[in-house]
Amino acid sequence: MSKELTSRAEDYSQWYNDLVIKGELADYSAVRGCMVIKPYGFALWENMRDQLDRMFKDTGHQNAYFPLFVPKSLFEAEEKNAEGFAKECAVVTHYRLKGDPGKKGKLIVDPEAKLEEELVIRPTSEAIIWNTYKGWIQSYRDLPLLINQWANVVRWEMRTRLFLRTAEFLWQEGHTAHATKEEAVEETVKMLNVYADFVEEWMAVPVIKGVKTANERFAGAEDTYCIEALMQDGKALQAGTSHFLGQNFAKAFDVKFSDKNNALDYVWATSWGVSTRLIGALIMAHSDDQGLILPPKIAPVQVVIVPIYKGEESKGPIDAKANEIIASLKALGIRVKYDNSDNSRPGWKFAQYELQGVPVRLAMGLRDMENKVVELARRDTKEKSSMPIEGLAETVAKLLNEIQQNMYNKALAFRNENITTVDSWDEFVKTLDEKGGFVSAHWDGTPETEEKIKEQTKATIRCIPLDNKQEEGKCVLTGNSSTQRVLFARAY
Amino acid sequence: MSKELTSRAEDYSQWYNDLVIKGELADYSAVRGCMVIKPYGFALWENMRDQLDRMFKDTGHQNAYFPLFVPKSLFEAEEKNAEGFAKECAVVTHYRLKGDPGKKGKLIVDPEAKLEEELVIRPTSEAIIWNTYKGWIQSYRDLPLLINQWANVVRWEMRTRLFLRTAEFLWQEGHTAHATKEEAVEETVKMLNVYADFVEEWMAVPVIKGVKTANERFAGAEDTYCIEALMQDGKALQAGTSHFLGQNFAKAFDVKFSDKNNALDYVWATSWGVSTRLIGALIMAHSDDQGLILPPKIAPVQVVIVPIYKGEESKGPIDAKANEIIASLKALGIRVKYDNSDNSRPGWKFAQYELQGVPVRLAMGLRDMENKVVELARRDTKEKSSMPIEGLAETVAKLLNEIQQNMYNKALAFRNENITTVDSWDEFVKTLDEKGGFVSAHWDGTPETEEKIKEQTKATIRCIPLDNKQEEGKCVLTGNSSTQRVLFARAY
Repeated sequence: MSKELTSRAEDYSQWYNDLVIKGELADYSAVRGCMVIKPYGFALWENMRDQLDRMFKDTGHQNAYFPLFVPKSLFEAEEKNAEGFAKECAVVTHYRLKGDPGKKGKLIVDPEAKLEEELVIRPTSEAIIWNTYKGWIQSYRDLPLLINQWANVVRWEMRTRLFLRTAEFLWQEGHTAHATKEEAVEETVKMLNVYADFVEEWMAVPVIKGVKTANERFAGAEDTYCIEALMQDGKALQAGTSHFLGQNFAKAFDVKFSDKNNALDYVWATSWGVSTRLIGALIMAHSDDQGLILPPKIAPVQVVIVPIYKGEESKGPIDAKANEIIASLKALGIRVKYDNSDNSRPGWKFAQYELQGVPVRLAMGLRDMENKVVELARRDTKEKSSMPIEGLAETVAKLLNEIQQNMYNKALAFRNENITTVDSWDEFVKTLDEKGGFVSAHWDGTPETEEKIKEQTKATIRCIPLDNKQEEGKCVLTGNSSTQRVLFARAY
Repeated sequence: MSKELTSRAEDYSQWYNDLVIKGELADYSAVRGCMVIKPYGFALWENMRDQLDRMFKDTGHQNAYFPLFVPKSLFEAEEKNAEGFAKECAVVTHYRLKGDPGKKGKLIVDPEAKLEEELVIRPTSEAIIWNTYKGWIQSYRDLPLLINQWANVVRWEMRTRLFLRTAEFLWQEGHTAHATKEEAVEETVKMLNVYADFVEEWMAVPVIKGVKTANERFAGAEDTYCIEALMQDGKALQAGTSHFLGQNFAKAFDVKFSDKNNALDYVWATSWGVSTRLIGALIMAHSDDQGLILPPKIAPVQVVIVPIYKGEESKGPIDAKANEIIASLKALGIRVKYDNSDNSRPGWKFAQYELQGVPVRLAMGLRDMENKVVELARRDTKEKSSMPIEGLAETVAKLLNEIQQNMYNKALAFRNENITTVDSWDEFVKTLDEKGGFVSAHWDGTPETEEKIKEQTKATIRCIPLDNKQEEGKCVLTGNSSTQRVLFARAY
């Protein structure tokens, strides 16, 4: 290996950081809790973002852009939402710097440039958006309003981790307005399904769709729907949420509409979001001790070609043949990189692209060319084979689909093996400690019990699965009666 | 007209605001100086952004993302840059809110959550990026580094105008690092040319490429290249800048590289950016008293089809024929909207799409259908004609190109008529006051004279055109000798 990686068994958390940093996805920055997304990581995000954006547009949504700042008086208007985010708010209090009279070349905040009203940097944009919607919505004809925004948000977290939890992160937030409760609930579920389809089909990560308990609900929502994924260390990760907001924000910002009969009512709302956190889920769902494993559909580079030169005179013919292959791959829409740089040896390159999770690697020397073959290595299974150059592009295109499917199947099998049904407290604790994964157990439905379980085991209720089977049972902690099982897990 | 617009002659500035707001491009927000970009305006920005992004990638650049925040100590490292932006900096000083003990449900900034070091919200990202590059660049092998970022930035302006000057705006900023001065200068000019090509070919706005004088240079740059456009009111608008930063930031952040001979040197830098301000330029270069006129290449909707129903029974056949036409337009990649909503009458729709600058409008009633024609209206010339449905998609595709070219030609003719060569102070002042536009005049090359001219006339030197003719002359203000003419104008 060119770069030493920590193994998962040795230190899972260090393994994760190694993959992010040595895989060149992201880097720490000089700002506490904020990261730099490097070009390779950003190209991955662009592929994810572009596909999500297509799916949002296909379901009738439009993009817009709202201010980064939320005046404090607007921020506090919806009380539950404000209370939920107050502890994490970065606040702008001044709008000017000036020269430090004591130290030449240094600056201080100008005390005379204090804002009359402080500005919160958006941790989420319901407040500023609903304050704007007030001016846009008068009648049922203005509804539904189906708007999405791609933006940066800031939540001042004390413990941060690259991609998983950073003070600033990139995300999208959909904010829709509807004339009826039914339509808003339908929208909430529709977008949950868009997220589930995206994460499963594009990221090859299986998810469980469900509803959060009151304890885990988004601050200001009536109901929070979520998709939950399972990481290789047995911890769950919330991959996306879609909130039915009822009329809470409409009431806080006085947004009413007149219906066809000229009756006034408050507007119904949803909001939904996924973020760069998805990249953390992607890494932990698929990768191994040699590095990242990226699903072909979103990999920045799907195929890398490494020439094996033996002496200067082999360069010309190999480069020429490689360019033919590249053209045939590109003609099928495959993202291909040719690495004929002489800065490093083939072995170093092999290790680097393995670390960076490129799905397919092709290597070709003079001997291969004479035999009209290339060496093909797939990243997911590490299988190597000799492949005829004739028809190679079609072979690779097929293989990329196969890799995508194989990654999903593997992750699905792992996830399914790690949903354990338990009926006693001992089993519950033992499963969490020894096996991990999702634990399907009866719960008496009270926030108090949920809280106690969390205190004793660090496990939370990840969700009440949609279309959950109703069955009589006894709560795993209290023994009180229960009508359904819910999914517990320790989580990111 | 469905919505009353102010005419240009009446009040140019109000006309501009009417177009932005009634054309549904943007709206004021609750935050001082910040705007909301509405879906129609954002779709326009997306078309501009996507094309620029392709051009950046085609010239070898990659996207990345750097933090919103710049710690004050980093911000002040490059002194000229810091000095240039200090007066416009929004500053985060606290990271938490808490309940107001005096007022239930209200929040205050928690005085115990004061940051040890204040964070500046990026007005531009050289500081945070060059601090990061320090960790990425060791050897000539790491160069060039060709990175771009799409981001929001904040400059606390006292007088704001929608799109043209807002406290927060969206932009892209390229930040590149090079081993030699020559290569950095070449990059600076290359990106200036990318901007010029984009603005001319996609926005249909002719520009003059030039170099700024020292007075007008970007804070921290050795040279600022710019493209300057002319608005219909005779004022100039800086549409994009590309900076050769020399080794200033490399020195401020101690970024050195070892060359092939293992000698250490500071890295050479460029930065370049365009912003949502371009939308302001677009509006003022082309639009008229009836509303926006958008160039087809970036118009969110290129063709709108309005059905003219006479009674319910005409709906079915007209919708069916319209859907055929839509399919044929879409097959040619044309962005088309069918407005068969019954919320408003055809006349109201015509006025609305005229206001919103849709390049081509098709209207069709039963009679038209029987005659196998549609009524076609082009927005730029307001010409109307009857067009056969047979071959309509091809006709429209050709027409869209023609409109794009016609808009450019018209703007170019206007711009060229409004470059006036003057040789005396009287002429200079008279031209500015009575005609406006660019004034080509001799200047003695001193910042003092430039400053005096600005004080007396509000005109600034927009640029020294690239490949400027060298000729002897006398400064229009001082009579001192001069070797070339420069372009003056009043500007946005």
